[in-house]
Amino acid sequence: MKKINTSPLSGMQELLPTEQAIFDQLKQNISDVYHHYGFLNIETPIIERTEVLLAKAGGDTEKQIYMVSKTDESADSADQALRFDHTVPLARYVVEHNNDLVFPFQVTQINRNFRGERAQRGRFREFYQCDCDIIGREKLPIAYDAKVIACIHDALKTFNLPEMKIRISNRKVLAGFLKAIDAESKATEISSIIDHAEKVPLEKSRAALEALQLSAEQVEKVIAFMFTKGDFTTVEAKLSEILGNLDTVREGLDELKAVFDILNAKEGMSDIEIDFMIIRGLDYYTGTVYETFLKDYREIGSISSGGRYENLAGNFTDQKFPGVGGSIGLTRLFFVLKETGLLNMTATKPIDYVILPITNNEFAASMQLASKLRKDGKNVDIDFSERKLGDKFNRAGKIANYAIVIGETEANSGKYTAKNLETGETIEL
Amino acid sequence: MKKINTSPLSGMQELLPTEQAIFDQLKQNISDVYHHYGFLNIETPIIERTEVLLAKAGGDTEKQIYMVSKTDESADSADQALRFDHTVPLARYVVEHNNDLVFPFQVTQINRNFRGERAQRGRFREFYQCDCDIIGREKLPIAYDAKVIACIHDALKTFNLPEMKIRISNRKVLAGFLKAIDAESKATEISSIIDHAEKVPLEKSRAALEALQLSAEQVEKVIAFMFTKGDFTTVEAKLSEILGNLDTVREGLDELKAVFDILNAKEGMSDIEIDFMIIRGLDYYTGTVYETFLKDYREIGSISSGGRYENLAGNFTDQKFPGVGGSIGLTRLFFVLKETGLLNMTATKPIDYVILPITNNEFAASMQLASKLRKDGKNVDIDFSERKLGDKFNRAGKIANYAIVIGETEANSGKYTAKNLETGETIEL
Repeated sequence: MKKINTSPLSGMQELLPTEQAIFDQLKQNISDVYHHYGFLNIETPIIERTEVLLAKAGGDTEKQIYMVSKTDESADSADQALRFDHTVPLARYVVEHNNDLVFPFQVTQINRNFRGERAQRGRFREFYQCDCDIIGREKLPIAYDAKVIACIHDALKTFNLPEMKIRISNRKVLAGFLKAIDAESKATEISSIIDHAEKVPLEKSRAALEALQLSAEQVEKVIAFMFTKGDFTTVEAKLSEILGNLDTVREGLDELKAVFDILNAKEGMSDIEIDFMIIRGLDYYTGTVYETFLKDYREIGSISSGGRYENLAGNFTDQKFPGVGGSIGLTRLFFVLKETGLLNMTATKPIDYVILPITNNEFAASMQLASKLRKDGKNVDIDFSERKLGDKFNRAGKIANYAIVIGETEANSGKYTAKNLETGETIEL
Repeated sequence: MKKINTSPLSGMQELLPTEQAIFDQLKQNISDVYHHYGFLNIETPIIERTEVLLAKAGGDTEKQIYMVSKTDESADSADQALRFDHTVPLARYVVEHNNDLVFPFQVTQINRNFRGERAQRGRFREFYQCDCDIIGREKLPIAYDAKVIACIHDALKTFNLPEMKIRISNRKVLAGFLKAIDAESKATEISSIIDHAEKVPLEKSRAALEALQLSAEQVEKVIAFMFTKGDFTTVEAKLSEILGNLDTVREGLDELKAVFDILNAKEGMSDIEIDFMIIRGLDYYTGTVYETFLKDYREIGSISSGGRYENLAGNFTDQKFPGVGGSIGLTRLFFVLKETGLLNMTATKPIDYVILPITNNEFAASMQLASKLRKDGKNVDIDFSERKLGDKFNRAGKIANYAIVIGETEANSGKYTAKNLETGETIEL
């Protein structure tokens, strides 16, 4: 009888060991690729000063933040809260340790963040984000934007997913475009309408634009802009058609071309398209923005996104640290891939061998054999329980590939036979 | 100029990337060994219901717990707090998922826990614990106690530490001993005195025992008991001498012998000694208890400890789940090993190759070469920055083993030379 509610809190992911093994493998794959790309791992504390976390945030973030307090409140405890992303702590870290870091600082953080969002299926309040970021001092060449996107792309390729597509844009193009059509003063509202355009019928976007009291011509230009996509030549031509001249968007287009060209030249790259409907939220990013989706599973939404921020730590210091970063939201991604049947769940059993000593007398021989197999990197369990051999085989079959029975004969001879728990075949060790 | 305090909160570990790489390697070593021993990884949420966390706790734990709340408090939010160890969440997990688990359930948890202790050098409020536990249903053979100790021992051996020693005891021996000398009613107080005996002069322990109004004979027997140590034969003889007969301590001694014999028979095992001064705190454990220390660095204290608990989830269910577990407190251990100079800080550089393209024209060739090297499992960075070549070499020397310069000649020929950044030697790739 249960005496207490033992379910995890709502919004928390809790996996059984076999699922956890798959989750861990995906996380390890991401980490390996990030490291192969030269990113260095750091870990910042989960608990931070509230003033650090909320230096820039506001709105939803502030409402969703988990505040922390001790029952035994002592004088030295500042206002504390759980971090809601990796970027704010990274900004603090870079400012705090900048004299000890090597710039461009290529950094990865793979860890849990916390947001008290409204509970909802597929939404998590505690979730892994796998970030990589490159931080420069004063300046950071545009090629790094391509590097971050390429790195995260290669990490996602280890998942063996269906065909991916990367959509990129650049905020400077949008800004230059709005300047050209004389609509800069409504930049925030127009960005928001473009950001949501994919989720609503066109007429609704048009109505929203009209409600901003834009002229009919301005509205048509914004709509033409947001549906502009394709390779660089195509979008440049289309933009030229809409605007007449490209002076105000030149810087953004140059950056976009640089990123597009580098990625296009990369071997084994998925489809990549420039798409001006990509905004990635309302503030924060200042140049490159991108998202990745699965071509045949667009309903899943973006499986990775990121972009360039010209000033990472502006709230903490006057020094300028431009950066570019991207993230895989692994907890959510794992959930939707599982739901959609896209996880390679052919879970290899987590244990290679279970050794089954017949009596206590074979414990020593069992441990010796286990030591040898472990030295070869094998995962080896010894079943010391007092159950019947049949029950032990049954247990072994659930967690392991092979069982090795050790009785007096085997212990004396040192000759062991491993039985494949799937096929029944035996092999001499 | 800093605008805000960017140091991490007091009591939080925050490492530079090179130190973090060493920390991560140690954590990976522990995880590898635990997996080789057949333990399965799980992760429970960091945030739990307060009623779950405090079902048993009290005293210091309750005072040190971090409570969690949302600024935007909604109706569905129960009282929540951050977990302070892995054992309470494990108990909840086992009860919640017991129908889906394979018993004995061999489980590892390597993650952060949180305690708002008074800030103090070397004490952490957010810290990694690397636990392994084996949970049975109804019963769990004593051999598993030896398995947990052997596994953690082998994990610690990967640290290349100076000589270790394992001290083991069994709470049933203590209980039986107190029964034999008719001092059961003062078990808690006497346990506490033995638990602290190592840190105070003998006269202080004696005075504390006398203050319990024990007879002079009882006091001498307790003192003789707590200084009893050695191999099994020695401690059995000594105990027989103190008590006359061994009836009340027989069960405890049998368990102790079983654990001692298995560990002693294990190849590559460090010194192991039975030592009745080992108590490991006041409640919780019910049988085997152990701790590990470094022979020549006793001031560091225990580097790993654990034991048997007869009823893991007694606060959550009437089902019986006996378990045995142990833990490495990695954050503290890393700190003290670093302080004592015992960490192998010969930090291999985290990056194998930094590629230095001379101009933008060599970006494509650089990315191609990087891809090839990454496929061989190498960590490869490309320096896209616009600094002078000398500055780029300087940066590369701080983070990598080799630099590869790519100019027009190299890009055209596809022949590359890697320069060892330590020795200056060059090798053809």
